[in-house]
Amino acid sequence: MIALTPPVQPDAESPSRDYGLDLSRLIDVATFTDERGAVGVVEAEAIPFAIERIYFLYGVPAGKVRGDHGHRTLQQFFIPLSGHFTVSLHDGEREASWVLDDPAQGLYVPPMMWRSVHTFSPDGVCLVLASETYDKADYYHSFETFTAEARKARGAS
Amino acid sequence: MIALTPPVQPDAESPSRDYGLDLSRLIDVATFTDERGAVGVVEAEAIPFAIERIYFLYGVPAGKVRGDHGHRTLQQFFIPLSGHFTVSLHDGEREASWVLDDPAQGLYVPPMMWRSVHTFSPDGVCLVLASETYDKADYYHSFETFTAEARKARGAS
Repeated sequence: MIALTPPVQPDAESPSRDYGLDLSRLIDVATFTDERGAVGVVEAEAIPFAIERIYFLYGVPAGKVRGDHGHRTLQQFFIPLSGHFTVSLHDGEREASWVLDDPAQGLYVPPMMWRSVHTFSPDGVCLVLASETYDKADYYHSFETFTAEARKARGAS
Repeated sequence: MIALTPPVQPDAESPSRDYGLDLSRLIDVATFTDERGAVGVVEAEAIPFAIERIYFLYGVPAGKVRGDHGHRTLQQFFIPLSGHFTVSLHDGEREASWVLDDPAQGLYVPPMMWRSVHTFSPDGVCLVLASETYDKADYYHSFETFTAEARKARGAS
């Protein structure tokens, strides 16, 4: 994993914050490797939500972008099962990107986040575990609306 | 998918059977493809069990075998997310093998089945969805014990 643009941390003078990108993080996938190859196990207790939906992305051309929308409540966990790709998150104020290239580590995406998944390698496969079944009403398709509501949710001016 | 050795079907004279390999089957994974690549969605209602455990196999050398044990009650669904591999099943009486090479189709493995997963391509990734969390007592490690108990369960001599 390479954090391309790690989230800006509040400095010591700032009040601590605990929203948006502060809540995103890499989580280890329990991995058992021997001469017969590797097994990665998604332990329920390792993921901060109950998994309600499973899907996977593959065959994504290098120049194409998946996602590119926001979610109000959805939580997700992205695992690179083959190759690599980049996940970019924006919490309405700050942004960060991660290149995911190790099946032993996934990215947790908290609620109220704009995300895109892009720059797949030709063999890139992204497993997505999600906290909710499909709900059209949970999506933001306008980045402007998303940032405005994210700002309101934080109580910012 | 190529059924290497499809299960022997009972002929018209035989009573219909509904155990072991008769219950194994390929199940389509809902797949949405456009110019941005493909998304495969594991719809809960498409799988004949509630998913309690998620794991994946990768980096398995071509000559190595995973699994090679039986389960009393465990049900599984194997999906090839990258490359290909072979799943061999034995219900104590009959055996069948499938080469899985299409992420849009997975193999359902019913209870009381001996299974092995082998002959991975170098890029082979096998996603496994399972009906139970790990339970040591659910395993058969002896093929002889498994076949004997499978025979008993069928009420055969």
